Amino acid sequence: MTSERNRSTGRPTLDEVASRAGVGRGTVSRVVNGSLQVSTRTREAVEQAIAELGYVPNRAARALVTQRTDSIALVVPEPGERFFTEPFFGRIVQAISAALAGSDLQMLLMIAQSPQERQRLEGYLTRQHIDGALLLSLHGGDDPMPVRLEERGVATVRVGRPAHPGPACYVDADNRGGARKAVSYLVERGRQRIATIAGPLDMSVGMDRLDGYRDVFGAGPMALGDFSEESGAVAMRWLLEQHPSLDAVFAASDTMAAGAIRVIKESGRRVPDDVAVIGFDDSAIARHTDPQLTTVYQPVEAMGQEMVRLLLAKLGGESLDSYEVVLETHLVVRDSA
Amino acid sequence: MTSERNRSTGRPTLDEVASRAGVGRGTVSRVVNGSLQVSTRTREAVEQAIAELGYVPNRAARALVTQRTDSIALVVPEPGERFFTEPFFGRIVQAISAALAGSDLQMLLMIAQSPQERQRLEGYLTRQHIDGALLLSLHGGDDPMPVRLEERGVATVRVGRPAHPGPACYVDADNRGGARKAVSYLVERGRQRIATIAGPLDMSVGMDRLDGYRDVFGAGPMALGDFSEESGAVAMRWLLEQHPSLDAVFAASDTMAAGAIRVIKESGRRVPDDVAVIGFDDSAIARHTDPQLTTVYQPVEAMGQEMVRLLLAKLGGESLDSYEVVLETHLVVRDSA
Repeated sequence: MTSERNRSTGRPTLDEVASRAGVGRGTVSRVVNGSLQVSTRTREAVEQAIAELGYVPNRAARALVTQRTDSIALVVPEPGERFFTEPFFGRIVQAISAALAGSDLQMLLMIAQSPQERQRLEGYLTRQHIDGALLLSLHGGDDPMPVRLEERGVATVRVGRPAHPGPACYVDADNRGGARKAVSYLVERGRQRIATIAGPLDMSVGMDRLDGYRDVFGAGPMALGDFSEESGAVAMRWLLEQHPSLDAVFAASDTMAAGAIRVIKESGRRVPDDVAVIGFDDSAIARHTDPQLTTVYQPVEAMGQEMVRLLLAKLGGESLDSYEVVLETHLVVRDSA
Repeated sequence: MTSERNRSTGRPTLDEVASRAGVGRGTVSRVVNGSLQVSTRTREAVEQAIAELGYVPNRAARALVTQRTDSIALVVPEPGERFFTEPFFGRIVQAISAALAGSDLQMLLMIAQSPQERQRLEGYLTRQHIDGALLLSLHGGDDPMPVRLEERGVATVRVGRPAHPGPACYVDADNRGGARKAVSYLVERGRQRIATIAGPLDMSVGMDRLDGYRDVFGAGPMALGDFSEESGAVAMRWLLEQHPSLDAVFAASDTMAAGAIRVIKESGRRVPDDVAVIGFDDSAIARHTDPQLTTVYQPVEAMGQEMVRLLLAKLGGESLDSYEVVLETHLVVRDSA
């Protein structure tokens, strides 16, 4: 079940201003933008409505009368190598691209990792080049980019719940619920010594998938990875050394699960007979492991569509500064568990 | 050895106009852009020089006095799936990104496959949003995009020699020479029945690698692929059916070589003992095949740097409309041949 929640503090919309002033949206925009094509009386009515409602005009309202840039940014604040090796990025970029296919908005993909690159990017984004920005994979709760962009009038939608609480417009998968389903399935199948390979804990996606494991199994054997296949292999090697009798592992990504399967087999154990493995993502790699991977499906395509829908709504003047859409996840049973 | 050649038809540069008129570059630009800050006498001198030389002002000249957009486009006219699965793209995007790290230019990556998406993209690129464009992987000689962009004043640099002759500014690897080195190596090692898996022949990269094979071995057994791993497997299966006694195969990409190795082993043959395999690209996959892949290295990182260097030169007003840089390739010997 998809959950959708507007946690807005009640900031008034352009429509509410127009309604209260008894004028159209375009008229409000013209007043906000200082157009001379508005009569003094109308201007005063709009200004009064703005004052009464405490309306703060945003970039989208301005764009109604100023020239639109006809483009949106898709920002990837990640190392380029990670962008090209982590399957999530390819899937969501294609989903967003598909969601924009019917629009007249050009998608501009921007990769920025180093502080210098990020500074240049922020400058570019706030110099009126784009209508809005979709932000992918923000590590940590202290990333100032989304807040700075919003402050400077760039409408933004993020993927992934921010690690620290605060107003944000984002789309996420139910990572915690998905992890619970995976670990519950292992328990139901009689597994008793279930370890987990967690993702980075400065990202909500890493934290949520670990919390789901703990919800069901409590504090079991845990190792940390960075979502890469190699990190999954290293983590699995360590887990087998420390807990040679474990009979299952829940990895927080398919790539880490693939690394884990390789190490389990190298140790002479069978998957799933000796050690069951469940991943997370249901990416293409899940059908190429041997045995094929049981994993948690996250609806990346729908997440991309939702991000576009929310951004277009913001550009249309809707007040979604504190808005979340969380899409359901489910277990896909194959051969590894 | 790198080869670099300006095949320009002698189109005059802005510097030549300035020199003939006895004024500075900036003055020529101001005249071209219709600035009022130029005396009538100076204007007439510049206009006369322009007429005498047949100078055609380009976007770069205009940019000297108009506002720069501080961004360049990196255009990928390919399906998104191919973009994320073909290692070449990841490598060259990172190379271009690295080459721009020290500049104030923001790289905007644009993926467009369908006719609708390409039309939207062309519109975007020609509406003064960007300073110039780098074009990746243009199939066929009839792709009108680069010519249309140039005609509309967008400076462009391509990767890969256009399949049909004509003026173009591009950076390429010596694909034909690299293929020759691979097949010569197989011949020197005593292989006598050498097949090839060629890439798409509507791309110069596919044609050139096939020509290199033919230069050395003549018309041997050939199958076609599309550079994907699966296409390499299908091609290899067909080759083994038709020519069961072949003792070597040169594949025009590492991914196709990986598919070929899998099929050769499935057929009960040993690599390289029964069938030697050489790929092309030296991408990451070459170190993950079993046995590790002997392959032709192409300097993707240097190619990205060269593309940026040429585009910056064009933006600076240099006349490089018919200019080629071809970078050397060499064989990397591992275990598969």
